[in-house]
Amino acid sequence: MATAGKVIKCKAAVAWEAGKPLSIEEVEVAPPQAMEVRVKILYTALCHTDVYFWEAKGQTPVFPRILGHEAGGIVESVGEGVTELVPGDHVLPVFTGECKECAHCKSEESNLCDLLRINVDRGVMIGDGQSRFTIDGKPIFHFVGTSTFSEYTVIHVGCLAKINPEAPLDKVCVLSCGISTGLGATLNVAKPKKGSTVAIFGLGAVGLAAMEGARMAGASRIIGVDLNPAKYEQAKKFGCTDFVNPKDYTKPVQEVLVEMTNGGLDRAVECTGHIDAMIAAFECVHDGWGVAVLVGVPHKEAVFKTHPMNFLNERTLKGTFFGNYKPRTDLPEVVEMYMRKELDLEKFITHSVPFSQINTAFDLMLKGEGLRCVMRMDE
Amino acid sequence: MATAGKVIKCKAAVAWEAGKPLSIEEVEVAPPQAMEVRVKILYTALCHTDVYFWEAKGQTPVFPRILGHEAGGIVESVGEGVTELVPGDHVLPVFTGECKECAHCKSEESNLCDLLRINVDRGVMIGDGQSRFTIDGKPIFHFVGTSTFSEYTVIHVGCLAKINPEAPLDKVCVLSCGISTGLGATLNVAKPKKGSTVAIFGLGAVGLAAMEGARMAGASRIIGVDLNPAKYEQAKKFGCTDFVNPKDYTKPVQEVLVEMTNGGLDRAVECTGHIDAMIAAFECVHDGWGVAVLVGVPHKEAVFKTHPMNFLNERTLKGTFFGNYKPRTDLPEVVEMYMRKELDLEKFITHSVPFSQINTAFDLMLKGEGLRCVMRMDE
Repeated sequence: MATAGKVIKCKAAVAWEAGKPLSIEEVEVAPPQAMEVRVKILYTALCHTDVYFWEAKGQTPVFPRILGHEAGGIVESVGEGVTELVPGDHVLPVFTGECKECAHCKSEESNLCDLLRINVDRGVMIGDGQSRFTIDGKPIFHFVGTSTFSEYTVIHVGCLAKINPEAPLDKVCVLSCGISTGLGATLNVAKPKKGSTVAIFGLGAVGLAAMEGARMAGASRIIGVDLNPAKYEQAKKFGCTDFVNPKDYTKPVQEVLVEMTNGGLDRAVECTGHIDAMIAAFECVHDGWGVAVLVGVPHKEAVFKTHPMNFLNERTLKGTFFGNYKPRTDLPEVVEMYMRKELDLEKFITHSVPFSQINTAFDLMLKGEGLRCVMRMDE
Repeated sequence: MATAGKVIKCKAAVAWEAGKPLSIEEVEVAPPQAMEVRVKILYTALCHTDVYFWEAKGQTPVFPRILGHEAGGIVESVGEGVTELVPGDHVLPVFTGECKECAHCKSEESNLCDLLRINVDRGVMIGDGQSRFTIDGKPIFHFVGTSTFSEYTVIHVGCLAKINPEAPLDKVCVLSCGISTGLGATLNVAKPKKGSTVAIFGLGAVGLAAMEGARMAGASRIIGVDLNPAKYEQAKKFGCTDFVNPKDYTKPVQEVLVEMTNGGLDRAVECTGHIDAMIAAFECVHDGWGVAVLVGVPHKEAVFKTHPMNFLNERTLKGTFFGNYKPRTDLPEVVEMYMRKELDLEKFITHSVPFSQINTAFDLMLKGEGLRCVMRMDE
């Protein structure tokens, strides 16, 4: 492309300081260096993690910064050493990468790449420790290696999944993070058998994606657990057959669930990150075969506590990160699940706004309205 | 047989009260009732659990009682409804059963039979709530449905594994409990891949059986962890390549193990039942793929505590009971592993005494000498 090797000037939403509305600015995006790719973002969605690091409560503040990590785009140009991608390829950026060389990448079981594992404090490229974004020569920091709230961004090749170019990027962009995280937690880790019972703790986008996985796996009963009763109606679209609000009971919710299911659930997936929900998700599964999977990220001081007999009675507890998907290897197939209409993404996309109205997307999420708001970069 | 349907008078070792030497007595053994089998015991071994319930510290005391649950014998007669066994069959009694009808027995994953799951407080048969043992008409209680410290005993058909009659009962009798428990924990639950690294916590008979499983699975490095350095020499026979004594370090043993193994073990199996060892076994496995398996039975008040991020980083924690073996379905194949010389049992049998010297076997175990003492009933 004519822009290859040159600085591109384009629009980006810059977070100048914690908690203040983003500001659409003209930024300069440097060409990709070794093992890097410059991507033209067409659609980007907003995820809780963006809001979390924008609020920067209790986090290391890294500002000014370009947030954003759920997106779909097209390769504009590639840096030295990039052989797997060429300009024009359709890609999903991913906040955690796959170098294909480390022990984790070589393990069939792990997706915790040593080189490109998520790093929320780093605001620069790993190759040279520099940012590719500047405004008037001053650096603007990156976010989790993706920074998709920009018309153009530079990403390590290991954090880009090359996908079917026929897949509509305004839909599959949501597979970059939350939806794959929940879906994979169920399909890759909990692995419910057809006809089994599954509890999902937390009915936000990740939890509903975990529920979609349970529906796809053929679960016969899917119990949604949430403190907000308004979540039940929406969850029904994702296969929810029963709803339990822990606030409606005086006894622990795990006891309620065990009674409801004649001894416990076959599987449970925890998507809130609250320690009580984690413990409940483990203690509500059936002895002999129950498997609980932790997805939600806990508070730093949280302590998981349970009586060890709960393990001895043949229960399993696992955790997962990004649904155990290896971004480059596995994400293209998740896109194909959507293309084959096995996976329904439309129901996750409750809002769509032009990129210029990105602060509306933040407002919607702060109010807890909807699941995913997709922003159109070309408007 | 000529004895079928009649009371048999024979010798048994009776525990009259907690902690007092057993006394060899002549007992009457009633004929088996519906779904029961009377077995002539040829060899019985002593397991820690016998000693634990004989000491009855903190347990419900059930006396007078005939202890014993690791044994090999031959069916003498069968009660009504027993179709799977006939007189002359060789059997291993098991302290936990398999009814083949309940949800657990029908699940491929569980061996926690609803009907015949271990019950340490019950001293009678489940069919009629009576004991089959008497002395001068007064009942002597059963122990975990087996009571193998008797020349003849009555056992529910669901607690008997029918095995290859060519298998030497003086060797395979140790598969009734501890050896299968440890072996199965590794082979059925931890499932180390060839070339992987495995830590075994606790190098008693169960831990060494777990180690034998790691050796059989082709582990490249097997680290034994025990507070007693004298255990290393013996453990080498079971494939132990490294030994760690937590007392030799000021930092937690999980940190020592993680450093020794460049990030953690592939698998860990905990066979002590001490809560600190359980936590260490979990925290010493590698992120991304590590699996820890709990085998040792914890104290009633024990609390398992860890930071939930240890799960989120893709570690798995499971517990197992009797190595996840279904007694009737799976134990015959474990016997065949011995017959094919894949599994070495001889090294577990460190002592052998005539049944009349059963108190010597108790003394050896109380002193921590040896692994298994097999008692010969016909002497």
